[in-house]
Amino acid sequence: MDIKKEALALHKNNCGKLEIKAKVKVSNLQELALAYTPGVAYVCEEIENNPDSIYTYTSKGNMVAVITDGSAVLGLGNIGPYAALPVMEGKSILLKELAGVDSIPLCLATQKPEEIIKTCKILEPSLGAINLEDIAAPQCVTIERKLQEILNIPVFHDDQHGTAIIVAAAFINIERLTKRKLKDMTIVISGTGAAGSMVAKILKQLGAKTIYAYNLNGVVDKAKYSSYNFLIQEMLDQKIYSTPPKHDNTLASIMKNADAFIGVSAGNLVSKEMVKSMKPKPIIFAMANPTPEISYLDAKEAGAYIVGSGRSDYPNQINNVLAFPGIFKGVLEAKATKINDEMKLAAAYAIAGVLTDEELACDYIVPSAFDKRVVKAVAKAVKETAINTKVCK
Amino acid sequence: MDIKKEALALHKNNCGKLEIKAKVKVSNLQELALAYTPGVAYVCEEIENNPDSIYTYTSKGNMVAVITDGSAVLGLGNIGPYAALPVMEGKSILLKELAGVDSIPLCLATQKPEEIIKTCKILEPSLGAINLEDIAAPQCVTIERKLQEILNIPVFHDDQHGTAIIVAAAFINIERLTKRKLKDMTIVISGTGAAGSMVAKILKQLGAKTIYAYNLNGVVDKAKYSSYNFLIQEMLDQKIYSTPPKHDNTLASIMKNADAFIGVSAGNLVSKEMVKSMKPKPIIFAMANPTPEISYLDAKEAGAYIVGSGRSDYPNQINNVLAFPGIFKGVLEAKATKINDEMKLAAAYAIAGVLTDEELACDYIVPSAFDKRVVKAVAKAVKETAINTKVCK
Repeated sequence: MDIKKEALALHKNNCGKLEIKAKVKVSNLQELALAYTPGVAYVCEEIENNPDSIYTYTSKGNMVAVITDGSAVLGLGNIGPYAALPVMEGKSILLKELAGVDSIPLCLATQKPEEIIKTCKILEPSLGAINLEDIAAPQCVTIERKLQEILNIPVFHDDQHGTAIIVAAAFINIERLTKRKLKDMTIVISGTGAAGSMVAKILKQLGAKTIYAYNLNGVVDKAKYSSYNFLIQEMLDQKIYSTPPKHDNTLASIMKNADAFIGVSAGNLVSKEMVKSMKPKPIIFAMANPTPEISYLDAKEAGAYIVGSGRSDYPNQINNVLAFPGIFKGVLEAKATKINDEMKLAAAYAIAGVLTDEELACDYIVPSAFDKRVVKAVAKAVKETAINTKVCK
Repeated sequence: MDIKKEALALHKNNCGKLEIKAKVKVSNLQELALAYTPGVAYVCEEIENNPDSIYTYTSKGNMVAVITDGSAVLGLGNIGPYAALPVMEGKSILLKELAGVDSIPLCLATQKPEEIIKTCKILEPSLGAINLEDIAAPQCVTIERKLQEILNIPVFHDDQHGTAIIVAAAFINIERLTKRKLKDMTIVISGTGAAGSMVAKILKQLGAKTIYAYNLNGVVDKAKYSSYNFLIQEMLDQKIYSTPPKHDNTLASIMKNADAFIGVSAGNLVSKEMVKSMKPKPIIFAMANPTPEISYLDAKEAGAYIVGSGRSDYPNQINNVLAFPGIFKGVLEAKATKINDEMKLAAAYAIAGVLTDEELACDYIVPSAFDKRVVKAVAKAVKETAINTKVCK
């Protein structure tokens, strides 16, 4: 199929992808008197007297805002808030179709972190949660942290945590499937933006001890500390990134004898030779989109044991759709006020746990994006963890 | 029926009144590839290259934000943004059910005009229009004016213009039904807030020459100019309010020999005696809610010829539902960038014109809120006027 033509036609024919639907009728004066004036005034008074009842009487408890500034949209870069709208609408309908969560796409005409933070704070009253989307690193980290601190509703930046949670699920299942443990692996991550940083962080939480990082400027090395942004500095401070004992600033030099490669960077960065230089049976997650760091077939030919990518046409697709719908369903059901690390780990374990021992295989290390078991398992795990870690209203 | 009990039950059983609905399916990887990645990237690029195509490919062109700061909600006063949400949801479902217009309720956690203005500016990209709602006077006027100036989408504050447009429609029909002309009438308006000011302004545009105003502090008199807020001062500057030649600062003193009384103030301000002191066959619109300035029955008994109120249980209900759904439908269809006075007048004439000469009567001076002819007529008139006055993209 001509995907460009079909995608444009789909969007044009529907004038976008979402609409609002009334859950109650207002087709005569009696119905109007209950849903609007004068009846609605009693509902307002009830909420004024008992603020928590807003979750009982309004849509707030199931309403997410999908918020972007358009600064880092898909692989398209800083295309601004207008051109970003189709992606936010897509996210909205996925939340609804997969998890029954209502959401509204809001594209902001500012890329200043303090204005984005202020706007979200001002929008809080009618929202149950906020999904930050496609905001450039490292400011996305600043924005999400500040919002978690000042808001009383959960905030989740999918570009940071979505990929990280699913890669974590993959490694949980790799530990199940093989004798290899994260604590013994040398892991190379290409890409130190939102996704790369949080992949490293969650793998560290799962037990990884040796993670080397690489970006456009070469190998991340403590010796170059002062040249890095706050996010990379923090990862070094917290000993999440290790400095390779020897390297010549190339990706090839740090992949030598590594167990796993994780790419959230750019296409065609990894050659077959580089894969061959790794430990036996290397693990490759090449998630650059649409062109991965190395193709599934090339990686396999070079001896990779487990290969994942962002693409749906090869095995082991690392698709954020596995995580965010269930996470939002879970936090909303729990009336959580934030999304902590425990909840993200719980989501990863839930995704991994969907696959039975019988199903689990090198080419089936994570469930498929439309596996109906996933949302349910993730929502349940996230809700229970929110309650257990006492971050609920 | 016990309206309080039923209204609370209706809201509780539905967890609010609106939800999001996906217009396109995403139930498998192929559909996902068109509605989300990778297909959606082509739609983003199309909008980036041709910004106007956002109206073709997204929901922007039919998406209104219903925005409040909760500072003047119904007759409840400053109950804040949380308790205001049920009203905004009500507005949203009315827009959808009556005019097919999608909208999202956004209750802002600020009552500072400059922050409200800034927030609306930042929210502009994904919106087709803004409905300001239940924001206190006089700052609502400042906010709406500034937004009309700086935004490229139409902004409409229903509390200012909704009632005004329908009262205007009523007077257009009074001119049709009787021999009396606005230019010859002495009109008394009780209430100088958002609604009262704009009622006066639109009646002036329709030809009224003598309008006296009254508020909590007594009769509006040019002699007290410096004690008024900017809005009342402006109405005096523009000679919309006249100063009564003699009065003792009571409402009774200026109603004597007046032709029409319009109340957008508080209950039980007008006695039968005051109605009897007016010119023969006086016109009374007593719109305070839920208790009008004088009841329909008392006004009729005192000799009033035409009586209207905000209530649905008596004739001539002045219900904003007659105006805003068709206005938003019209401006969105026209891709209007603002709502000018000509468009508001066109809406008033359209509402009035719905009633045929055969239908028109003292107790049927405006159509009923659910008359299916109204939205269509208003939308058409507003759209045509937007095009003719060249305020469209």
